[in-house]
Amino acid sequence: MTWLGLPAGDVFGVHNLPYGVFTVDDPGSTARLGARVGDLVLDLGAVERAGLVEAAGTLQCATLNPFLALGRPYWTAVRDRLTVLLTDEAYAEQVSPLLMPLAEVRPRLPLAVGDYVDFYSSIDHATNVGRLFRPDSPALPPNWRHLPIGYHGRAGTVVVSGTDVVRPSGQLRPGHAPSPVFGPSGRLDVEAEVGFVVGTASRLGTALSTADFADHVFGVVLVNDWSARDIQSWEYQPLGPFLGKSFATSVSAWVVPLDALAAARVPAPTQSPPVLPYLTETDRYSYDIRIEVVWNGTVVSRPPFAGMYWTPAQQLAHLTANGASVRPGDLYASGTVSGPQRGQVGSFLELTWGGAEPVTLADGRIRSFLEDGDTVTLTATAPGTGGTVVGLGEVVGRVVASA
Amino acid sequence: MTWLGLPAGDVFGVHNLPYGVFTVDDPGSTARLGARVGDLVLDLGAVERAGLVEAAGTLQCATLNPFLALGRPYWTAVRDRLTVLLTDEAYAEQVSPLLMPLAEVRPRLPLAVGDYVDFYSSIDHATNVGRLFRPDSPALPPNWRHLPIGYHGRAGTVVVSGTDVVRPSGQLRPGHAPSPVFGPSGRLDVEAEVGFVVGTASRLGTALSTADFADHVFGVVLVNDWSARDIQSWEYQPLGPFLGKSFATSVSAWVVPLDALAAARVPAPTQSPPVLPYLTETDRYSYDIRIEVVWNGTVVSRPPFAGMYWTPAQQLAHLTANGASVRPGDLYASGTVSGPQRGQVGSFLELTWGGAEPVTLADGRIRSFLEDGDTVTLTATAPGTGGTVVGLGEVVGRVVASA
Repeated sequence: MTWLGLPAGDVFGVHNLPYGVFTVDDPGSTARLGARVGDLVLDLGAVERAGLVEAAGTLQCATLNPFLALGRPYWTAVRDRLTVLLTDEAYAEQVSPLLMPLAEVRPRLPLAVGDYVDFYSSIDHATNVGRLFRPDSPALPPNWRHLPIGYHGRAGTVVVSGTDVVRPSGQLRPGHAPSPVFGPSGRLDVEAEVGFVVGTASRLGTALSTADFADHVFGVVLVNDWSARDIQSWEYQPLGPFLGKSFATSVSAWVVPLDALAAARVPAPTQSPPVLPYLTETDRYSYDIRIEVVWNGTVVSRPPFAGMYWTPAQQLAHLTANGASVRPGDLYASGTVSGPQRGQVGSFLELTWGGAEPVTLADGRIRSFLEDGDTVTLTATAPGTGGTVVGLGEVVGRVVASA
Repeated sequence: MTWLGLPAGDVFGVHNLPYGVFTVDDPGSTARLGARVGDLVLDLGAVERAGLVEAAGTLQCATLNPFLALGRPYWTAVRDRLTVLLTDEAYAEQVSPLLMPLAEVRPRLPLAVGDYVDFYSSIDHATNVGRLFRPDSPALPPNWRHLPIGYHGRAGTVVVSGTDVVRPSGQLRPGHAPSPVFGPSGRLDVEAEVGFVVGTASRLGTALSTADFADHVFGVVLVNDWSARDIQSWEYQPLGPFLGKSFATSVSAWVVPLDALAAARVPAPTQSPPVLPYLTETDRYSYDIRIEVVWNGTVVSRPPFAGMYWTPAQQLAHLTANGASVRPGDLYASGTVSGPQRGQVGSFLELTWGGAEPVTLADGRIRSFLEDGDTVTLTATAPGTGGTVVGLGEVVGRVVASA
């Protein structure tokens, strides 16, 4: 219960409490940290300056990174304290003036993203893409069940929800012409993913184990890893995706702490063949995060995160198995979340089967890939404590014409 | 001429003046900017504080990034001013106390690296690797002559010259066994490359042209892109190199400004077929940078940068062709520099032809790939103004056993 008078069932209630960064429409307004609660934002810098919470000054910074670097004891203590401030009526008078309507703030990218890694951990997505991109080979590459395949994306073009996405241009081969041409992508797509935000750093030369996940990862964002399929298919051999991905990756403005997702843990799928020891988990679990993909207002898919073959703990262990270090603010994404059914896929490539089976949206418009002016919104929910529901996202982006 | 009394022919004379970051062995010493001249380092923060140069306070920062962000007019003005300070006898008394012996400072990573991109732009290297990794396919992929192939590497594991490199572990398939095992890489290699340091930012959604290279790129470092070939060959399909590269990338401590390399410009190779318009150059040039690869004291190769098929201006235009933005401190590397002869290759994979043709070092030791305790040093020179020679590097790294 809270003194805020939130509507029953609010998925951004006190049981959620995601963190973000915002500015207000005021000349000279600088970026500041906030916690979202319902349709309000609590100004965390002001809360710390007022002496109501203590986080070594990190809540008064312009990105979440310094707070992330403090580690789990601080994350838990601050969350517990904010919960008290928002539920104990005794604090209502002090805290109320530090809340402002969500509609009046402008969300900013919550992190200075260090490195951005994108995995490929849905067996249904990998199978679908293999069939579409490499019809003459086995759908799953031989390494797929042995390691969580991943690659580095462009950290500098991770943008916050609400940022317009300019249609990328690049080299294309229409109809597999012998020579490429240069022009706007005609196969602009989305990838619905869950992103994991690294809190505490690891040391170069030292691997993390799957058990280190809880100490090193702070929380979760939704990710739309926009993809230009025609640019990607021509460029990606032999060194992987590059310009087909690097033009924009959208993330939700509010980072949901893992602490808010404790009740969302579910067993992860059994793996076969058994994985190598550094990828084993004594407590193997996924999160029951249910995503919705909304295209111009129509829900076109409901990708289920729970069924991902590789878990975020395995991804972290793999990412560091060679001694690579992580830093506060590093982001790694699950890869496109697709379930086994057509209505559960996380990309339009799969939804329309490479464009061969267009979909009709609720307003009657027919689509294979994204057209200029289209808007895609990702949202998600997961079970919260005590029968509540935790909201994630939204991640919204509108496609604008090539410059 | 300079009042410093440098030896004739010093490749780090006033005609070079590379920038770096260093600390001194003094408790509480913080990182500060320096310019190397001969075997001395000029404390740039102290020079600016003394009012001898003006760079908006950026020379008093702990990384080069704020200075890089100022742009070419500032880069040129500061370089011109430092040249006056170090050559006009009238400044000797004021400037001398701000110089310290190179041997007494500890170089640090000069940049906070934003995004790190690695290209693949030597036709000889790509041909060699194609033959070794994909013996059943054409050596050059079909896209190779149409675009400078590149991928994102891990920015957080870019380390400064002198940092030990821990032998990475990872999934390996000895003798192409049906299932992988986990263990230390047995095929640890180097890649000798030239890295380009981005100065000024570009705007998301807007491509840079090849002509923008001079305004956006500040300078050059040598790069050793350490590579674990056995990890790489198992993991890299279909999304590219990941853990085979991400454990460490070494860069030289001193960033040589492009201004110091004006006399090193040479025509770049003619490209066939002609490239698409966004990759054309009105003034197409490479740099006559001559690299030496030294393995435990023996010069084993002399890779020539001048012959690279794709130029750094083309790489920048390609990198941003989809609207991806660049930031001050972004780093992009040329890819392994290999010439057509065995003594000109930039990797041991090529030098020993996949390990099949080991080399004998001057001390009689025989090597295919790197062994624990081995040291690799990259150095380079290029023509400077007025018949001088500009030194680049060194990049030195010693291999230590797996943790």
